[in-house]
This record gives sequence, C-alpha cells and structure tokens, in this order.
Amino acid sequence: MSEPLDLAGQAAPVDPAGQAAPVDLAGEARRLDAADVLAALRERFVLDDVTYLDGNSLGALPAHVPARVDDVVRRQWGELRIRSWEESGWWTAPERIGDRIAPLVGAAAGQIVVGDSTSVNVFKALVAAVRMAREDGEAGEHGEAGEAGEAGEAGGGSGPVRDEILVDATTFPTDGYIAESAARMTGCALRPVTPAEVPGALGDRTAAVLLNHVDYRTGRLHDLPALTRAVQASGAYAVWDLCHSAGALPVGLDEHGVDLAVGCTYKYLNGGPGSPAYLYVRRDLQPRFDSPLPGWNSHAEPFGMRSAYAPASGAVRGRVGTPDILSLLALEAALDVWDEAGVSVAAVRAKSLALTDFFLRCVGAYVPPGRVESVTPAAHAERGSQVALRCDDSGEVMKRLIEGGVVGDFRAPDVLRFGFTPLYVGFADVERAARVLARTLG
Amino acid sequence: MSEPLDLAGQAAPVDPAGQAAPVDLAGEARRLDAADVLAALRERFVLDDVTYLDGNSLGALPAHVPARVDDVVRRQWGELRIRSWEESGWWTAPERIGDRIAPLVGAAAGQIVVGDSTSVNVFKALVAAVRMAREDGEAGEHGEAGEAGEAGEAGGGSGPVRDEILVDATTFPTDGYIAESAARMTGCALRPVTPAEVPGALGDRTAAVLLNHVDYRTGRLHDLPALTRAVQASGAYAVWDLCHSAGALPVGLDEHGVDLAVGCTYKYLNGGPGSPAYLYVRRDLQPRFDSPLPGWNSHAEPFGMRSAYAPASGAVRGRVGTPDILSLLALEAALDVWDEAGVSVAAVRAKSLALTDFFLRCVGAYVPPGRVESVTPAAHAERGSQVALRCDDSGEVMKRLIEGGVVGDFRAPDVLRFGFTPLYVGFADVERAARVLARTLG
Repeated sequence: MSEPLDLAGQAAPVDPAGQAAPVDLAGEARRLDAADVLAALRERFVLDDVTYLDGNSLGALPAHVPARVDDVVRRQWGELRIRSWEESGWWTAPERIGDRIAPLVGAAAGQIVVGDSTSVNVFKALVAAVRMAREDGEAGEHGEAGEAGEAGEAGGGSGPVRDEILVDATTFPTDGYIAESAARMTGCALRPVTPAEVPGALGDRTAAVLLNHVDYRTGRLHDLPALTRAVQASGAYAVWDLCHSAGALPVGLDEHGVDLAVGCTYKYLNGGPGSPAYLYVRRDLQPRFDSPLPGWNSHAEPFGMRSAYAPASGAVRGRVGTPDILSLLALEAALDVWDEAGVSVAAVRAKSLALTDFFLRCVGAYVPPGRVESVTPAAHAERGSQVALRCDDSGEVMKRLIEGGVVGDFRAPDVLRFGFTPLYVGFADVERAARVLARTLG
Repeated sequence: MSEPLDLAGQAAPVDPAGQAAPVDLAGEARRLDAADVLAALRERFVLDDVTYLDGNSLGALPAHVPARVDDVVRRQWGELRIRSWEESGWWTAPERIGDRIAPLVGAAAGQIVVGDSTSVNVFKALVAAVRMAREDGEAGEHGEAGEAGEAGEAGGGSGPVRDEILVDATTFPTDGYIAESAARMTGCALRPVTPAEVPGALGDRTAAVLLNHVDYRTGRLHDLPALTRAVQASGAYAVWDLCHSAGALPVGLDEHGVDLAVGCTYKYLNGGPGSPAYLYVRRDLQPRFDSPLPGWNSHAEPFGMRSAYAPASGAVRGRVGTPDILSLLALEAALDVWDEAGVSVAAVRAKSLALTDFFLRCVGAYVPPGRVESVTPAAHAERGSQVALRCDDSGEVMKRLIEGGVVGDFRAPDVLRFGFTPLYVGFADVERAARVLARTLG
C-alpha cells in the first residue's frame, strides 16, 4: 500500500542551462495563503508559533469556546441549575447538535444524535445492523431455516442465516475490538478483510460490514458509495466510521444511501478533548433501529418512569443515558465556525487537497531521496486530509520534530502522521513542516 | 410502602395547661445551623435565595470549579493541545478520579474507573456478572449439562445453567431497560422483583442481581450488606447502583465484599450536568472482568494499535473509548470539596439524617393533617438522603413550590421529591421548605 515519493517530480524543474533550479516553495506558500478563501478562519482559533498538524487527533481550540463553556458552567449550571435541562436546552442538546453536524456529512436533519464515545456508538450501530439483517432474513423468501440467532431471540427465520460480520482489517483497533464483542453477543463470526476485499467477501451470510471512510494510519479514502452499494446488494448493512473524514471532505450520507454511521467530534470538528461522538441512522431505518443500549434517554416518554421500555421515534432512539452537557455544549459552540461566510465542505475539501499536495511536493523537494516513503495515496479520490510517511525511526523522528515546533503524531509501528485541518492550517505551515522534517531527518 | 406522617408527634408538645404550644422550629433551625460542623462548606458552593433541594438530581456548582474548567479549556486544550494527554494527565484521568471517589464509597484505590453514563456502566457490569457466574458454573461440580449460554460462546458447562437476571422491580427505569438488553444478549431471562423479594427469588439459575442502594423515588435505603451476602450465597453476582447513595451515606463496598457497582457523579458528588459515571470492580474479580464494550482504552497496550484485543489489568479494564475530558476534569475539581478539614462520609451521613428528620418534623408541624404522606421510611437504617411526599396533585404542587423559591422535583406518578445534600443544605433551608410547602398546599 505504500507509494515512494516521486522525488524528481514537480518540485525541481530543470532550467534551460540544464541546472536544477531551486524552487521557491516558501514564496509559493505565501502566494497560496494570499489566495486562500478560508485563510481568515485561522483567526477564529487559538494558535501559536507551533506548526500544528495534529488536528486529526485533537482539533485546535476555537477562540470563542472558552467564554461559552464558562457561561454553561457559571450561569447554566451555577445559577439555573436543574432548570437548565429545559431553559438552557440541555435535554435536547444531543439531537440539536446532531442537526448541526448533519450538513457537514451530507445528512438531512433528524438522523444524527450526539453522545457517548465512538466505541459505544460502533457497538450500537453494529448490533442494530445485525438485528436488521436477521429481521430481513426472517421476512424473506429463502427456504432454509435459520440455526443461529442472538441468544434470547427467536433464532429461526425463513431466510439464510446472517451470521457473519465483516470488519476492515486495517481499522483503528477499537472498531475491531468492539466488532468482536458485537459478533460474540449476536452469535456471529467476525471476519477481518481489507476494504478492497469486501466485495468478494460479501455473501448471503453477511449481516453487517464495519468500514472506515478514511484509514486512520495511511490516510487512504475508501470508496463509500461503491462499497455501500455492494454491501446493500448482498443484503447486509454497512456501518461507516467517519472519524477521519467528517469535517475534512464530503461524505454524502443521504446521497449515497448509507445505512448507519458513527464518528467522533474532536478531530476535524474541533469539539475538544474527548467530546462526544455521534450516530447516524438513516431515516427509513429508524423505526427498526433496535439498540443494545436502550437507556432511559431513548425512551418514548423518558420522564414517564415506565418499567417497560418503549423506544422513541427518530434519531433520539440512539441516545442512552444522561448527556454529558459540558462537553456537548463546547462542541456546539465549536461548530459555529462552520457558519462563517464562505465556509463549506467543498471549500474545505479543495483546500485540504491543495495542502496535502503541497506537503508532498515540499517533502519531495526538501527530504533526501529514499529517506521516507508516503503511505498515503497520491490520487485525490483516494486521499483523506492527512499524509502518512513511513520511515524506520519514525518514533524518534516525531519526538525531534515536536521539539522543533512541528506537531504531528506517531502511529505504531513506523508511521509519521500529519493532519491538515483546512480551517486553520495554511500553506506556510506546510512548507515549514516539510523544511523542519528534512532538517530532522538529515 | 407509604407511611402517613405522625402529625401529632414531636412537633407539637402539649403544655401543662393542656394547650398545644407552638414550637419555634425556625429558632431550632438557627440553633442546629449554628452547631453544624459542616456549615462552613456552604460557602464553597454557588447558591442564592433559592432553597435548593434537588441536589439529588443535579448537585450545586462548587465555586472553584469554573476557574478550573477555564484552565482546562484555555491552557490545557488551547495551548498544550495534544500534549495534554500526557502533560495534563488527561490519559489517566478515568482511573485517577476513580481513586478520588473510592474513599467516598468505601473502596481501596485501584478498583474504580470513571467514564460513560450510568446506563452504559450498568450494561458492562451486568454482562460481566453473567459471564462470571457462567464461568463459575463451568468450573463447578454440578452434573447437569448447560443448554443455554451467550451466543457465540461455549454453552455447555458442568454446573446448572445460570440463565436468570433479577432486577429491582422499583428501579429507576434505565436500569431495568439495560438489564433487559443484557439479559437478551446473554441468553438470560429477566425477572423483576422487589429488593425484599430477592432472597426468596435467588436460586441456582440466578446469574446476576441488579439492585439500587437507595430507591430514586421513595428514598428507601436497602440493606446492601445482607442482600450482597444472600446473592453471593446463591452463587450469583450482585451489581449495585449507587446513584442515590454515594456522597450522602457510607456504602462500604470493600467492607461488604460487593462484587460490582456503578454510580453517577452529578448528584451528591456535584460533578456537573451529565458528568461521567463510574464502575467499581472488586480487585479479585478484575482478572475475570470480561467487558462487553472492550474499547481501545481498556487494552493492555492502547497505543500498540494491535488488531487483537488484550485487556488491561485492574480497573482500567472497565474503560471503553476516549474519555470526556472537560466533564471529567470538572468532576475532579468538584471532588476537592471532600478534602476540606472535618468533611467525612460519617459527618455527612449524620447531618443528612438530622436534615431529613427535621424536614419530616417541620412538615408534620406545618402541613395540614392528611394532605401529604411520606413514602420515605422513618427508620434511619432504611432512609437515604431524601424525603418523598405523596399527594394527588404533586405535579402542580411542585410547580407552585418552585415558583415560591423551593426547588425539589416531581417524579411520576405522584411524588414530591426533596433531596438534602449535607454539604450545602442547612436547617433553615429545611424549615423554610416545609413552610412554603404548607402554604402551597394550604
């Protein structure tokens, strides 16, 4: 999956006299920054002399967020106390903030709810997906009787038994661990395959497929529309993890008919450390969404204090327990950045690709040949908003880079990871990062 | 379960001339407040003219918390950004804050981890309890082969099949809903029984029992030591929900050998709206704690990015996904109140009982006979830190009470609930609340 950098490429044209002319990348960065339609947004964030290319791990602080959090703490909690559940809109925050995220991932309102961690949401989505696949099988026309089934549920259906979950073999580990638990608890086998292998691995026993839109390590962007269609054609349900794509590129959940999706909010959405994740359930699937975590917040009448569970309608059905208000409302404030004039996912994507292109060029120009290789695809259609470079001593290199004022991160076993958040990263940052990297590697 | 107030009781002694002497309860409140060893703590909280008796729903704001949260947002997130995971102790916050809660519930360090909602923690604890009970059965000497078992696991063991979960029939609803899901996903039947019925309902098919230490509605304190012993004697595991006891009275988790416990932190621990819950797993059970939500934060080597799950040792095994830092660190700050000189769970319990005693006396003295009845036990050994009064029009009464500056809450169908947080509620508050209640009911 790795692609050696084309070091003799665009960065060093040959002049008429046959000499390699030094390209003025710093000057080009200045010109690109001057033409950047999103450049003014940088002032909305708290930044300093550090070149911060780790927004794909923890987004930078939007400058207006501290005052908003302070108001939540001092006035909403401190003065209004319990009244804030209604008067400050605490109770409805999970679905209200879900509706703020919706346009960023191409979803109409009413399909996203915010709360819990990504891991917990993966569990909800995968178990619900398996249950829907089984329900389809029971309602289907196939003749063979089922022999498996979730413990405690009617096992036999009229369709073939859906008893396999496919999971991206290169996934961020937590998705794999949670998929293993979801499989165990629903009587499924778990089969790790690469996204490329998914179409060939699908069959009439496949219940659900857990995929990443962008690979956390390599930055590879997977083909969400085509993979979703393939999964659905097999009668299974696709669950997409959007952690590394939401806020950086178009997702098109509704357009591509995605079944279920989850994502975190502390990367490109800048929600703050450990801010709650979200769950998307396509509108027509909501009445069938059968949560393995049916907490009281997802009840049709949460204050009715009923002993029997009756699920709410809509996205609210994905809620579980009492929402984490401080983190939720910090996230809500952070999302205001997207309301600025001119900010759109399309503009963000265009700048993201320009940033990663430029970074690859600068690295090609500055770094000695063969010292690193890019594991991020060169093709735009296959690239997220990060560049991952492999080198043998990457752990040590990243330490020295950080000392040199360029913050990326290291991902075991051998990857230097650089994330480019178009809302606040500029082209001068990119040029500087490559320059410091070259010096560090030199 | 209700107990009509003894209206002719202590409040209105008969004088030698045979006349009922008006008792000066306001004066008594002043004397009690003057003698209150915890009285000075009130200044540590943000309070106003409102008589706040809803700390059992949302604890008041400790005055020093806003500045701490502001530092987390501005400096730790805004300036240090990703470095804070190490430098600001973010990564270890769940277990570090667990160790701060531990002494408040009678647990030695290393057994409590903070994170997720109470509902999610109930799911972890109950599923893990069922798995341990089954494992015991498989290791046991009983001859009958098992026929049930969690889907995807070896079903047959040598012991009797543990296929039943008992749940408190009067529980706060979410525990019942989650127990139903845990039962469904582990192939168990769910049987709701009152806590009093538990000893008689236990049998060799009981896998786990989910109980509340204090009933959310009535304020009844259940006998944790005796019920734990009974559950354990049957070979099952007890999961205790401490939401309405932790921070208000001694729990004694270690002393009473409790297996597993969960609780929230936004009531008597004042952690803020929706602050994360906690999970206690007794030390000797930790190696057997088999979580249904094995997220990457519970991995033995979370940054190893291993595709195979290997659980961490200790309380950390109860973690799931990325911890919610803003809410976690607000909670950590709130817990500082317990470090003040003279503050102990014993002192808090003594004041709590004095407050609820005094409230019952004041209500008896002020409220017309028969207008309300207490559903909270009169016996200290059976009372938590709240008083619940039943009256037909309780929803309307609570609305008017709140308009009158006394904040309690209403719990369907007919209960006025008043919580007494000894850290900041005084006896004058109690007397005033009863006086306004009498006027409201009059």
